[in-house]
Amino acid sequence: MTKVLVVIPAQEEHRAKLEAAAPEFEFVYSTPKDATEEMIAEANIIIGNVPAGKIKASENLQLLQLNSAGTDAYIVPGVLAKGTLLANATGAYSKAVAEHLFIMGLAMQKKLHLYRDNQARSAWEDEGLVTSIADSTVLVVGLGDIGTHFARMAKALGAHTIGIKRRASEPVEGVDELYLTDELDNVLPRADIIASFLPGTGATAGIYSAQRLALMKDTAILLNGGRGNAIDTDALYEALKNKKLFGAGLDVTNPEPLPEDHPLWKLDNVWITPHISGGFHLKETFERIVNIAAKNLSHMAKGEPIDNEVDFETGYRK
Amino acid sequence: MTKVLVVIPAQEEHRAKLEAAAPEFEFVYSTPKDATEEMIAEANIIIGNVPAGKIKASENLQLLQLNSAGTDAYIVPGVLAKGTLLANATGAYSKAVAEHLFIMGLAMQKKLHLYRDNQARSAWEDEGLVTSIADSTVLVVGLGDIGTHFARMAKALGAHTIGIKRRASEPVEGVDELYLTDELDNVLPRADIIASFLPGTGATAGIYSAQRLALMKDTAILLNGGRGNAIDTDALYEALKNKKLFGAGLDVTNPEPLPEDHPLWKLDNVWITPHISGGFHLKETFERIVNIAAKNLSHMAKGEPIDNEVDFETGYRK
Repeated sequence: MTKVLVVIPAQEEHRAKLEAAAPEFEFVYSTPKDATEEMIAEANIIIGNVPAGKIKASENLQLLQLNSAGTDAYIVPGVLAKGTLLANATGAYSKAVAEHLFIMGLAMQKKLHLYRDNQARSAWEDEGLVTSIADSTVLVVGLGDIGTHFARMAKALGAHTIGIKRRASEPVEGVDELYLTDELDNVLPRADIIASFLPGTGATAGIYSAQRLALMKDTAILLNGGRGNAIDTDALYEALKNKKLFGAGLDVTNPEPLPEDHPLWKLDNVWITPHISGGFHLKETFERIVNIAAKNLSHMAKGEPIDNEVDFETGYRK
Repeated sequence: MTKVLVVIPAQEEHRAKLEAAAPEFEFVYSTPKDATEEMIAEANIIIGNVPAGKIKASENLQLLQLNSAGTDAYIVPGVLAKGTLLANATGAYSKAVAEHLFIMGLAMQKKLHLYRDNQARSAWEDEGLVTSIADSTVLVVGLGDIGTHFARMAKALGAHTIGIKRRASEPVEGVDELYLTDELDNVLPRADIIASFLPGTGATAGIYSAQRLALMKDTAILLNGGRGNAIDTDALYEALKNKKLFGAGLDVTNPEPLPEDHPLWKLDNVWITPHISGGFHLKETFERIVNIAAKNLSHMAKGEPIDNEVDFETGYRK
């Protein structure tokens, strides 16, 4: 009998949905922390991000259904056995992550971070000019579900939107101008807001180098909702300190967590949130994850191809 | 010859625009602070908010064109002579003020104020669940240009919108449900975000009483972009302190400026900005004010009725 280990925090109604999708499977519930190596070794299907180090290329494992969009820890050779399918939860996070980063950008345009700092000093002080999303050119780098949702929101509030994709495609709703990655350097100088949603792959590490940061406007706001290592942190620190950027809104950092003594914490023109835009912070996200998992359980039960299958070469959904 | 005193910070191009609107008029430029009582006494038209106390009901004054939307200080008996026309700058601020308050509300939904406080302590700490504008019911109280712009933005990002108007009207774009002021108590319990843009008149003072605050959801966010005295500050403090509201975003307070030792500063679930959402903080606002003033100069030169004429009874545009 196919054994399913579920380590996402599934409540009664979620368990019912998962079990109904594959009634003949046997379900065991645990948490990423409490799941024993034995439970993992016995599982044929795992739902949720068990620690990669505990999987040990188990030959029993047919499918690892992640509850994250990011796959970096699981595409490393030796983590999964050859033949184990890997699926991510792309799509579940689009609303939560896109909204979080979008709102960080809007709030920086209105200097709400600086007013919050003033408030801590009980200071009724004017921080001067602000800008408007309606007059902004917004560049979205990485047009998966999250980036596309971001672009649509920016467009809905009047922005001009530019999108950068990895692969050629049809026009994308909400994106006024669409380019491939090799055009990045040409569009960076035009953007008032740069929102990056790149996954953690070899190709994206350090993509925002000192040179690329220097291409951005002094008045630009850089938002990172992908992986922290897309940005050269030291170069970003220098750029922000020297007012070569207006600000940065970061839900991901490198390293992560950001150490308490890291100088980035103390710059007033950076706004840091602790990698919380995704996770299960928006209730709807978790519902979407359960739906993705249930669908893939059903596909496995019926011997059908799964959704959201990850390509081990790229770390992206195939 | 008609004498025009301009006390808004008009640059070369603004002066050219104003003078072109009424070439036969004589223009004098100053600031609200530097304008002497003599300059004010001689002026037939004043463009900009000179201190109300300096006008002394001058019989020479035909038109006072304010650069503010609010008119409270100028409709007080004895400030303007009978027959002096008063015009405000309604419309100039809609984008700036609506965006500022809207973004405060969005940022509170994502707990960005709490994450900013954590950042001050270099603390990588999770603040838990957030909510989404796309799932929210947004109540806009006061559907002038600002409130209408606010409702349209909320609608564009997926919210359900309810509007409260003073007077019956046609349906308003972006407003799903439209009611008159006497329905306020019935709709307050439904709102996730309450955005208030009421001017400072006798009828609006204290409208958000302890009783009305108690009608709001415990999870609601109250935004005030009108006048601070619309809210009973003590009652708001108690509600926030006792978590009877999720939060308040205030660009206006009562009193104003908020004294350094006021307890409101120290509540973590209030976000205070120092009455800066309007002013000239968004460049476009000033351009719009100049356009309104130029149009009214032209109307005066031609003996036409002016735009944005204020009703001394209500303080609103007629």
